[in-house]
Amino acid sequence: MKPNLQVALDNNTLESALADVREVGNIVDIVEAGTILILQEGTKAVKSLKALFPNKTVIADTKCADAGGTVAKNMADAGADWMTCICSATIPTMKAANKEIDEIQVELYGNWTKEDAQKWLDAGISQAVYHQSRDALLSGETWGEKDLNKVKMLVDMGFRVSVTGGLNVDTLKLFKGVDVYTFIAGRAITKASDPAKAATDLQNEIKRIWN
Amino acid sequence: MKPNLQVALDNNTLESALADVREVGNIVDIVEAGTILILQEGTKAVKSLKALFPNKTVIADTKCADAGGTVAKNMADAGADWMTCICSATIPTMKAANKEIDEIQVELYGNWTKEDAQKWLDAGISQAVYHQSRDALLSGETWGEKDLNKVKMLVDMGFRVSVTGGLNVDTLKLFKGVDVYTFIAGRAITKASDPAKAATDLQNEIKRIWN
Repeated sequence: MKPNLQVALDNNTLESALADVREVGNIVDIVEAGTILILQEGTKAVKSLKALFPNKTVIADTKCADAGGTVAKNMADAGADWMTCICSATIPTMKAANKEIDEIQVELYGNWTKEDAQKWLDAGISQAVYHQSRDALLSGETWGEKDLNKVKMLVDMGFRVSVTGGLNVDTLKLFKGVDVYTFIAGRAITKASDPAKAATDLQNEIKRIWN
Repeated sequence: MKPNLQVALDNNTLESALADVREVGNIVDIVEAGTILILQEGTKAVKSLKALFPNKTVIADTKCADAGGTVAKNMADAGADWMTCICSATIPTMKAANKEIDEIQVELYGNWTKEDAQKWLDAGISQAVYHQSRDALLSGETWGEKDLNKVKMLVDMGFRVSVTGGLNVDTLKLFKGVDVYTFIAGRAITKASDPAKAATDLQNEIKRIWN
């Protein structure tokens, strides 16, 4: 199956996010209200994105760590289809969240183990987001064999895995042969001189590699 | 030193948070814009609390996991004195955040080790928040020797430690002999029939035990 393309909107204001998503929302498969944007604007950001793109999957990247039921209900009420929980959240938090919204994605940061991942699956959560942290990327780290092996392990376990962090049309091919569920791009789309072309180029490269 | 008392506002709307904090903001030492509230209302919540209580420490409980510099700058601009990062954030994320705001608190959830804690100290971060997850509490877990030993270990390492989760005037004495920096209470204050009395009772019990 062709991996999805997701645009991450990590803007400081709703207005700037709307300007960034205007030309690309209908090209990508999934529109993400990024953590920065939600922390700035609240659920107004999620509501606005769902209002503009009712037929796209809208993700609230809350990285929820606690009070999963309340946060998930709030995000679902605002129009989010899926929501993220941080991997260090407890299983009760993830389960509580999973009851209130269509799907939960586990955001992988820091220490987590295969045993943790199995617990998430056992709790009914089958999406994970594998990250290169933006700050880690700024410190010079990049995608490597270690990352790809972890992604493959998660896919083999039964997760649908989204990958994100420093992705562009040149780095997609690193994932050839891996059943990635979704590629998440932020600045590679929104900061391009022609964002619609950048999104289309990414979609075409995904189709070329995973045809 | 007398431990601080912090009220956590985990409301779904700014208006409800204002109603809850109105009578207690000047009794407590620290006012917290909770994660649920910020995800709902954005930085407007932080700005409003600082406007109402300019002489109190205001904490933005963002549980920041990535893009630390941007999130911390945004919260500082909104008037937050301190901000939380989730323990699974990378050290570069925490360092980036720590540059942009007065102080960072590490929120302890899930897997973390003494070695991690030493890395936070080495990165210049000396506040930690020890949690009983609300969802874990709902599942029947409570404060025990294991928790107290972890709090003591962090204090001995040099952290100022805030504790939170199911605290009330009866459970404070569990911490007797431990140099807790801050007790965080939410519903024990805001859902009391007389919130001002509940906050005053907590302050008096703290003074009695840590005089």
